[in-house]
Amino acid sequence: MASRKGNLMGVRTDIKVLDATIRDGGLCNNFGFTDDFVRALYKTNIRSGVDYMEFGYKASRNMFNESEHGKWKFCKEEDLRAIVGDNVSDMKIAVMADVGRCDFKTDFLPKSESVIDMVRVACYIHQIPAAIEMIEYFHDLGYETTCNIMAISQANMKQVEEALEMLAQTSVDVIYLVDSYGSLYPETAQELARTYLEVADACGKQIGFHAHNNQNLAFANTIEVLSYGVSYLDATAMGMGRGAGNCAMELLLGFLKNPKYNLYSLLTFIENYMLLLKEEGVVWGYDLQYMFTGQLNRHPREAMAFTAEGRKDYCEFYKSLLECF
Amino acid sequence: MASRKGNLMGVRTDIKVLDATIRDGGLCNNFGFTDDFVRALYKTNIRSGVDYMEFGYKASRNMFNESEHGKWKFCKEEDLRAIVGDNVSDMKIAVMADVGRCDFKTDFLPKSESVIDMVRVACYIHQIPAAIEMIEYFHDLGYETTCNIMAISQANMKQVEEALEMLAQTSVDVIYLVDSYGSLYPETAQELARTYLEVADACGKQIGFHAHNNQNLAFANTIEVLSYGVSYLDATAMGMGRGAGNCAMELLLGFLKNPKYNLYSLLTFIENYMLLLKEEGVVWGYDLQYMFTGQLNRHPREAMAFTAEGRKDYCEFYKSLLECF
Repeated sequence: MASRKGNLMGVRTDIKVLDATIRDGGLCNNFGFTDDFVRALYKTNIRSGVDYMEFGYKASRNMFNESEHGKWKFCKEEDLRAIVGDNVSDMKIAVMADVGRCDFKTDFLPKSESVIDMVRVACYIHQIPAAIEMIEYFHDLGYETTCNIMAISQANMKQVEEALEMLAQTSVDVIYLVDSYGSLYPETAQELARTYLEVADACGKQIGFHAHNNQNLAFANTIEVLSYGVSYLDATAMGMGRGAGNCAMELLLGFLKNPKYNLYSLLTFIENYMLLLKEEGVVWGYDLQYMFTGQLNRHPREAMAFTAEGRKDYCEFYKSLLECF
Repeated sequence: MASRKGNLMGVRTDIKVLDATIRDGGLCNNFGFTDDFVRALYKTNIRSGVDYMEFGYKASRNMFNESEHGKWKFCKEEDLRAIVGDNVSDMKIAVMADVGRCDFKTDFLPKSESVIDMVRVACYIHQIPAAIEMIEYFHDLGYETTCNIMAISQANMKQVEEALEMLAQTSVDVIYLVDSYGSLYPETAQELARTYLEVADACGKQIGFHAHNNQNLAFANTIEVLSYGVSYLDATAMGMGRGAGNCAMELLLGFLKNPKYNLYSLLTFIENYMLLLKEEGVVWGYDLQYMFTGQLNRHPREAMAFTAEGRKDYCEFYKSLLECF
């Protein structure tokens, strides 16, 4: 099994930081970001040394009504271009495509005609064959690809090992460990990551990690798995993301020692843009209701409803969660 | 060096949970808790299976004016008795005595006449000889004792090793690793803890851990060091404590597998008492200003002033911290 890579003082040049603020944070405000916000974040990410910026989903316009969601649920080429032009920068552009919720055969241009660099295919573990079909399609179009296997804390190890073996045979570039329920501890995240890394090292792929902060462990789990060789790290400004949110970019940039990463640029963005979102009433972040679902290894949907209703009766809510078993 | 003890499913009967809400949380409201609050927390802790409850400081009444602080800065015997009577329960009562800020030769009764079970002696690493004098005095009076070496992230390893060797020769029961600045990462906390454990195992003492949440790592660091054998674990309700606060008791009780620990009782207390404190404007918890001082391994005093002034100009504040170097 993999041992620790590098140390707490040095630079790991294999590390890639991905900003998922618009994509995962968009789940908090139905992708209702202004162009000014997205453009400022784009410029911030470039100045901060972020390696990839994920702009949102490529959701099916047959399944979802465009008028009911912000544009970053669909990430049309012209909307991306309006922000980034030809993206004359070192930073790469990513979008997410969900298995079963994306018209992938009609909604993607060949890479040569698109400003998108990377397509991240998100799936549950039983959808791996469908994910692989999409990965090969995107790879043939010329994109970098990832496979983000969600809700990994509910999969059993045999499933995980089989999924990894299947992905090892594909063109996918990065396999992501996704702690959708925020229920992993550093010890469990580390064990899973080392299983992923063993497969990835053997077939020349990279491993990524996407955390949720239900138990206040998003940053801790991220730096734990990175220490064993996970190299693609998702984070968001102020941890903005569904429910309890994600690993906070400011914590991650403050941890990484590579001088290419710059915390100060991000602080300017937080002060000028993120605080305003909070004032406008967009809600995310660690709270007891999310801790419960994390501890119980469950989808946060009931906790999100509890939050949306402004409830504070934690005891009743906790009891209701226990009854559902 | 110590390896991991136990596993994520089992019970470690050596674990002792200490609630420091009144003591460390008291630094947020100048110990201005009502008797009703303290009594409710006392009953909650008993029901939750907490092993020790720390009521506050035994601060010098020559140095500090009693009228300017809440009573839990002084923890007079009659005030403790008014809450706990003779403490007919399995839970033990702790107080903290700071080196240099405590009239220890006049303010402590013999254990046989006091409801206090444990005195925690807090010091900086250069004060170890003074701490040892106090520890032996309290031990001779009949108390359990701990030595809480604060700000350990600013001590060098040679100092730490010498301090541990000195403490190994004393009557102290528990040696605490205290991350006062919240600047330890799980990897660094683990390394320090294993150094402490090596000394403690050789002389039959226990190791404790007291975290601060500046980098959202209080819980993560606590479960990391406990996995290597640290057995005395400090936590507070909702993480209430100076600045960024401490390890949240609800996260810790949700993690520990020993059925003696009960999360639900604590939730009732949080809902009925802690939310009210927040509404009344008592402020603590993770925020960017504390992240900065944690990342920079500094005392949070400037961040506490920034918080008290209600400032949100994170960029200016961050620049001012960098200038101080």
